[in-house]
Amino acid sequence: MREGLIGNRITGLYGIVNGTCNYILSRIRSEGVSFVEALADAQRLGYAEAEPSLDVDGLDAGHKTGILASLAHGFWVNPDDVYMEGIRFITPEDMRFAGQLGYTIKQLGIVKKVITGKPKRHSAVQVSVYPALVPDTHMLASVNSVFNAIFVRGDVVGETLYYGRGAGRDATASAVMSDLADAALDFKCGVKSRVSPFVPHECNVAVAPIGEVVCRYYVRLSVIDKPGTLAKITAILGGLKIGISSVIQPEGHEGESVPLIMMIHDATNATMKKALERIGRLNAVKAPPVMIRVESFESF
Amino acid sequence: MREGLIGNRITGLYGIVNGTCNYILSRIRSEGVSFVEALADAQRLGYAEAEPSLDVDGLDAGHKTGILASLAHGFWVNPDDVYMEGIRFITPEDMRFAGQLGYTIKQLGIVKKVITGKPKRHSAVQVSVYPALVPDTHMLASVNSVFNAIFVRGDVVGETLYYGRGAGRDATASAVMSDLADAALDFKCGVKSRVSPFVPHECNVAVAPIGEVVCRYYVRLSVIDKPGTLAKITAILGGLKIGISSVIQPEGHEGESVPLIMMIHDATNATMKKALERIGRLNAVKAPPVMIRVESFESF
Repeated sequence: MREGLIGNRITGLYGIVNGTCNYILSRIRSEGVSFVEALADAQRLGYAEAEPSLDVDGLDAGHKTGILASLAHGFWVNPDDVYMEGIRFITPEDMRFAGQLGYTIKQLGIVKKVITGKPKRHSAVQVSVYPALVPDTHMLASVNSVFNAIFVRGDVVGETLYYGRGAGRDATASAVMSDLADAALDFKCGVKSRVSPFVPHECNVAVAPIGEVVCRYYVRLSVIDKPGTLAKITAILGGLKIGISSVIQPEGHEGESVPLIMMIHDATNATMKKALERIGRLNAVKAPPVMIRVESFESF
Repeated sequence: MREGLIGNRITGLYGIVNGTCNYILSRIRSEGVSFVEALADAQRLGYAEAEPSLDVDGLDAGHKTGILASLAHGFWVNPDDVYMEGIRFITPEDMRFAGQLGYTIKQLGIVKKVITGKPKRHSAVQVSVYPALVPDTHMLASVNSVFNAIFVRGDVVGETLYYGRGAGRDATASAVMSDLADAALDFKCGVKSRVSPFVPHECNVAVAPIGEVVCRYYVRLSVIDKPGTLAKITAILGGLKIGISSVIQPEGHEGESVPLIMMIHDATNATMKKALERIGRLNAVKAPPVMIRVESFESF
């Protein structure tokens, strides 16, 4: 971004930046194992620490995404402003339903220009980490196991992607050697900080609060299969002007708890949160709603 | 390779480096159109010139692959030593059979360390361009339309990939701006050629003649469906110690010409050429054999 893409404004950046999470999600996808089982294997293989929360709760990816946001937009990103969500709640069931809809689930670090309306219309940047549905046809869907990749869209160059190992001492050594060689060349040439740490493209940029960020959603509810349930749910969504793009309701037996999967059109995170709180209070809804964001990779 | 991968010896490099060819092959794959039809569309869209041979006969990709080989191995590659094969002979039929076997066909620029036995065992580099069967699961199989990508394997970093638009004035402008900014920073710092054009990793490297290069092959024959045909073909292959890994023979009517598809184990290009010349002379073989190399992305 500071050299090869220097002629660009970065309009969107999406990264798979934590090898442990990607290993776990790849295992859930390919073998249908649970999060707990995949994590245990990751620990056995040395990919995950005994205390795995830095990885699986999104903190490591959050720190990296903050750095990427600073590189892309030239302003200091306070780690407290980075919204982070982990992957502990991702189940084989949700991975399977996502697959039926043509998606896989990846933990994404996202840095994206957004237009927020408050207090007045201004430019802000979404900086967040969460598991998201990624279309199977997208390059990032093919990034599996401990591999990492960053998908960067520039206003001039268009879409680009950079892919490689995200873990392991050799890959880390390769990166460190490159940094040392860079410093040595500066020494040799008597130059200091030849390339500026930040690209000074932007000014007056702020991190958009997650509540103001607009995206699409995958929602899975556990509902009692009885007449009127879907009507109550759609009434709540309709009342908040939230549109449904598709529904999967596997056949169940009347009176039993069945999964209800909905794909939701663009809505702010704040509105969606409100809707799910109301839906969660319905008598027919038997478990807290599961919400996973859907990434369309569009940008402004 | 000169900066981020400076700590590595490059053991393999595989590039989709011609947007026109990739557009044409992507169209053949996705829609089953002929080469001629896809080329006409590419010309209408401005991706291909009225005289398209520089693109579709592999010359443009050959020049780029020669430059990549020089960057990777630090020696001058004579363009005459780069083996180049175009994509005019790729048919929807071969793309379909490749798909049945779990592959797609991509034009690849290949720079790969090989061990040749003549005159004595020494290190050489394959530098060539040809259409090849690429496993559907490989990242390069997902690079479609006018996008380009280079897959680079380093001995320390492992597998990496770089992806972006391979054609269009905006993507080109982005690259030129980056080069200008690089030159401007050198000016500003009073430095000349901070990064050396070649990484001086290697010495005594030579380009391996294509005849000595070992790979796997997809072969399609048009044969008369009569007893003994397959026996004659396998006798020729066996006599040259060429192994067959699988055969597809769609059901035909006795006495009629049918396609016979064989996947061939590792063999040198020279041996394979000899085998196909002999097979082509059989009475039961009704058209010149079609041979497409299969890329396993392994390296030494």
